[in-house]
Amino acid sequence: MSSQFRHVALIGKHPSSGPASGATRAALEDIAHFLAKQGCEVAIEQDTALHTGLQGFQALDVAAIGAQCDLGLVVGGDGTMLGIGRQLAPFDVPVIGINQGRLGFITDVGLGEWRTVLAPMLHGEYETDRRSLMHARVVRDGRCVFDALALNDVVVNRGATSGMVELRVEVDGHFVATQRADGLIVASPTGSTAYALSAGGPLLHPANPGWVLVPIAPHTLSNRPIVLADAGEIAIEIVAGRDASANFDMQSLASLLHGDRITVRRSQHQVRFLHPRGWSYFDTLRKKLHWNEGGS
Amino acid sequence: MSSQFRHVALIGKHPSSGPASGATRAALEDIAHFLAKQGCEVAIEQDTALHTGLQGFQALDVAAIGAQCDLGLVVGGDGTMLGIGRQLAPFDVPVIGINQGRLGFITDVGLGEWRTVLAPMLHGEYETDRRSLMHARVVRDGRCVFDALALNDVVVNRGATSGMVELRVEVDGHFVATQRADGLIVASPTGSTAYALSAGGPLLHPANPGWVLVPIAPHTLSNRPIVLADAGEIAIEIVAGRDASANFDMQSLASLLHGDRITVRRSQHQVRFLHPRGWSYFDTLRKKLHWNEGGS
Amino acid sequence: MSSQFRHVALIGKHPSSGPASGATRAALEDIAHFLAKQGCEVAIEQDTALHTGLQGFQALDVAAIGAQCDLGLVVGGDGTMLGIGRQLAPFDVPVIGINQGRLGFITDVGLGEWRTVLAPMLHGEYETDRRSLMHARVVRDGRCVFDALALNDVVVNRGATSGMVELRVEVDGHFVATQRADGLIVASPTGSTAYALSAGGPLLHPANPGWVLVPIAPHTLSNRPIVLADAGEIAIEIVAGRDASANFDMQSLASLLHGDRITVRRSQHQVRFLHPRGWSYFDTLRKKLHWNEGGS
Amino acid sequence: MSSQFRHVALIGKHPSSGPASGATRAALEDIAHFLAKQGCEVAIEQDTALHTGLQGFQALDVAAIGAQCDLGLVVGGDGTMLGIGRQLAPFDVPVIGINQGRLGFITDVGLGEWRTVLAPMLHGEYETDRRSLMHARVVRDGRCVFDALALNDVVVNRGATSGMVELRVEVDGHFVATQRADGLIVASPTGSTAYALSAGGPLLHPANPGWVLVPIAPHTLSNRPIVLADAGEIAIEIVAGRDASANFDMQSLASLLHGDRITVRRSQHQVRFLHPRGWSYFDTLRKKLHWNEGGS
Repeated sequence: MSSQFRHVALIGKHPSSGPASGATRAALEDIAHFLAKQGCEVAIEQDTALHTGLQGFQALDVAAIGAQCDLGLVVGGDGTMLGIGRQLAPFDVPVIGINQGRLGFITDVGLGEWRTVLAPMLHGEYETDRRSLMHARVVRDGRCVFDALALNDVVVNRGATSGMVELRVEVDGHFVATQRADGLIVASPTGSTAYALSAGGPLLHPANPGWVLVPIAPHTLSNRPIVLADAGEIAIEIVAGRDASANFDMQSLASLLHGDRITVRRSQHQVRFLHPRGWSYFDTLRKKLHWNEGGS
Repeated sequence: MSSQFRHVALIGKHPSSGPASGATRAALEDIAHFLAKQGCEVAIEQDTALHTGLQGFQALDVAAIGAQCDLGLVVGGDGTMLGIGRQLAPFDVPVIGINQGRLGFITDVGLGEWRTVLAPMLHGEYETDRRSLMHARVVRDGRCVFDALALNDVVVNRGATSGMVELRVEVDGHFVATQRADGLIVASPTGSTAYALSAGGPLLHPANPGWVLVPIAPHTLSNRPIVLADAGEIAIEIVAGRDASANFDMQSLASLLHGDRITVRRSQHQVRFLHPRGWSYFDTLRKKLHWNEGGS
Repeated sequence: MSSQFRHVALIGKHPSSGPASGATRAALEDIAHFLAKQGCEVAIEQDTALHTGLQGFQALDVAAIGAQCDLGLVVGGDGTMLGIGRQLAPFDVPVIGINQGRLGFITDVGLGEWRTVLAPMLHGEYETDRRSLMHARVVRDGRCVFDALALNDVVVNRGATSGMVELRVEVDGHFVATQRADGLIVASPTGSTAYALSAGGPLLHPANPGWVLVPIAPHTLSNRPIVLADAGEIAIEIVAGRDASANFDMQSLASLLHGDRITVRRSQHQVRFLHPRGWSYFDTLRKKLHWNEGGS
Repeated sequence: MSSQFRHVALIGKHPSSGPASGATRAALEDIAHFLAKQGCEVAIEQDTALHTGLQGFQALDVAAIGAQCDLGLVVGGDGTMLGIGRQLAPFDVPVIGINQGRLGFITDVGLGEWRTVLAPMLHGEYETDRRSLMHARVVRDGRCVFDALALNDVVVNRGATSGMVELRVEVDGHFVATQRADGLIVASPTGSTAYALSAGGPLLHPANPGWVLVPIAPHTLSNRPIVLADAGEIAIEIVAGRDASANFDMQSLASLLHGDRITVRRSQHQVRFLHPRGWSYFDTLRKKLHWNEGGS
């Protein structure tokens, strides 16, 4: 029986993370041959190909992968996975993550076990894990000056050596509050285990269609995290504070001006992560948050 | 023009809260006459009628109100409103809350303003605010020994002078964690502003179709609140701890045994609260949580 | 060179924790012979002697140990250590803890390493770690009806199936606040890593001469933990709530009445724990709280 | 009977806060004449004199006030009071704060009540409220490159658009932890009601001789606030992170380098605030934190 996925793209971690180790190169090559043996047509993401020197496979950029492939196979960490997932979402191409280091929240196939884990997945034995994407815009003087997708979070921050930032928050045109704080995080379920968790936010199960607003060090003690339905539009306006900036997953936009509005809507696209059959989100939480280890 | 609601029931706070004051009796009477003038057929909830001595109106118990009336009009606080809302939900009869004291999270028409506020509402000028209900069961040795609807929360607690309780939590049959804590709260969006908030939970907007699990004083510091989709079934099993009890809104079930399972599902019914046109949930949050008062 | 401590008492965990295992008995016997070889006169706490059947050593109750011995050597967990420390404090007899299971916050000598660790400690190579004790009283109608020492915490709790308890707090006669909550914890630095931590309190270094008041699920969100100087007297009065109870380390006092006052002062006694030379409180924190494990 | 304080300096808010209003000028003039009538020799802080145009009184800079005066009388807010208190501490000159706007945590005499409140205070009817000061240094390559006193807090921050900062913390040479976070606050009891409170820290009573370390959005969930004895030296080393900065009450030091060490010790000086007889710290807390207002 051959793979359900005919055309598979292999993607390594971004070259900016440092030179590919010999081990990584070897693993990518092994996986590529393994895929070919399973009857897949194998492509290598073009930066990965360049970076590792892997030859003998079709080299494609991410847009071409989106257009031509049925599956993306990422070898890297959660960061790489988030970036590729976001880019492939508009093409509805699913992604599997193989982790080189400690298992992550999304990349849950270990480098030592991919052989036994991948085969059944290629033959349809997997769990689909859909994640919502945020579509964020920055509007200045009525014009959109920035536009991005974010899978984890959209964060508005005060300047480094200035005091608090003051933000006016609206949801679907309804005034929520004016908050003075170090900043404000809008996190998806995916982002709820990242920065938002450090700032005191709750965990959001990926099946809950919501975003969570988490204030960072808010001046008013009753400014608690609030979980919204993801169907609405969130707008955050810079009211006061010098050198505020915004951050969309990896990308930063510095020097926001008073009156700038950051808006967040649900994107029409979703990321599709595939996990081994029997995978449960709670197993990942338990492992990553060290629950039930008998410790304090 | 006459009222959109033909048959309206008036309900006062529960007699157990103490004797009805003269002011309450007068207010109820005034409202009853006002409703009649608006062309409504007016019924008085039977305990309220007894308790206040109000005569000249049809006296109905809550089940009959559910069967016959188009609208319930509660004069009381959030507690009364929650109780009546829960009882009328199976009949899909909407409820308006008139507050005698400080405005509540749900009862947002003040006793001093009902005249100006009610008239337009009766003529269709209102916002509908649907709230999910939890259907909770306690299962012992495979048999259901308790069954209740809850609008706020389902709480499992340790005994008063015992140490922690140990609870095994599952969602849709997936193991979540075994938690040692003072207790565990399953709160709806409505309950997220009540006990769950005190225990460190986030706010949940009523439009988010979720429940939040909030551990009370958990032994493991990474046991953070987790927001779930309300489509699944939550099961909590008593693993260890003497004299654990469970609480469903107002009703308590003491002396739970090891092995008892408390399950929570979304009820097929919803509560429908009506608010004055222009009402926003965020206005209520801001007022009740003292946001934007320029204070600490 | 012989031991600095001439007369040493060996104390096992309390019989109520279950029968002494063969391993425990063997360990106690080994330690007793080891101490004798170091030139110590060895006594066995009388319950421990009975419980383990260890013979050939003087059997003393805890009061006699306090009067006659220079050092207590506890084989057990943090709970046993707290109990013995509290009882020996009035006699100013120092205590060393040997842990049978996972290392605790106070018992930091492992059962596998006592031979190498104890010898230098007996010869004066140790760190002294003094812990403050709370002297708590319950006053009803002007009369003291309960009196206890606590090393961890004094906790006032609501009844299991009742709602909140309402507590009026004073410090040195100054009104602090009336709090509605599940309860209130007064914790020492020692207790700050126990229940108070679960309830959201800060860590208190043992060198800080303070107590921390930690409300449990307080109704008012700005009711934050407050760290006081331990020189003052804290008074907590039951204002409202059914079936409130108080807990002093291990001992519970149920059925508190409205008007009952729980007072907490610093005891004139301190517990003296001895640790291996080079011991640091922060090493223990790091281990127990899993800091710097590269995890989330 | 004449004033206990012979030589009193009047100090307005710093000119940088905006032009002195006519009301402020009038209030300062009224107070100056009132003090003269009480038998005090009156000096005006030299910037205040310039800024308001107040004439006929001796103009002194803050150092001269420290050398010559017995009392400083600040008309302004908490910020002004903190600044002047810090500057006068080395001279052990006490300070009274008269607040122009909403009462602060330290400035608790209202502009409308100073006449009735000041007279008895001048005659010795006051409470003394001593506050500890932090002496902070930045050490680079073994040399001290910055030196400051702080009354509220010393804060180390990540750069605005960079990720986390990584900080190695030591107390008295003992390793505490390496923390990845947005930053770390070392707060005095005075600062515990400011930024540290927003970041989740506890309240510290001024009589407790401690500092509190509060991590800002720490990556490790068990990195809880920790209260230390103020007798030790805290050292924070920048291990990783771009563009970290440090903040000492009002002053910022940007562009910290890896290896830079920020140290904090207790200053030998203290600030002495005077309050009206009967003042209690808890009254201020209750007012500022809106305790016991019957709200949520």
